[in-house]
Amino acid sequence: MAQIVVDVMPKPEILDPQGKAVTGALKRLGYTGLSVRQGTRFEIEVEGEITPERLEQAQVAADSLLANTTIENYVVRVGE
Amino acid sequence: MAQIVVDVMPKPEILDPQGKAVTGALKRLGYTGLSVRQGTRFEIEVEGEITPERLEQAQVAADSLLANTTIENYVVRVGE
Repeated sequence: MAQIVVDVMPKPEILDPQGKAVTGALKRLGYTGLSVRQGTRFEIEVEGEITPERLEQAQVAADSLLANTTIENYVVRVGE
Repeated sequence: MAQIVVDVMPKPEILDPQGKAVTGALKRLGYTGLSVRQGTRFEIEVEGEITPERLEQAQVAADSLLANTTIENYVVRVGE
């Protein structure tokens, strides 16, 4: 089965409370000098081959459904 | 700034209600033949270089804090 991956991350200028919470937790555990941002990873299993049409579909789906483009950036790519 | 990426995904044998919801929403929008699983992507900005020690730290953090290893798999890698 072919796979398309969509990574959705909060835009750099947007506050990321989940990432901040993880950063704080890591600091309390002794991991300093780290800054974490948290996003979402979608793994889309595709029946058959990955065609340019399929990738275009994934692009439209990411833009309209998977990401909130007001506050999030996304990257669509072919998975391993 | 160097970056380490940790991808956390539900294990294959674990139900993934969020992924199922996305799969259903895509189907209703006309995207058939797709199966989505949803996980979490952590982007960890590291001060200075990425050393083997830093990667080891990220590995331990992923194992103990970022992933619930009972139900999730994770991958740690150097980001772009």
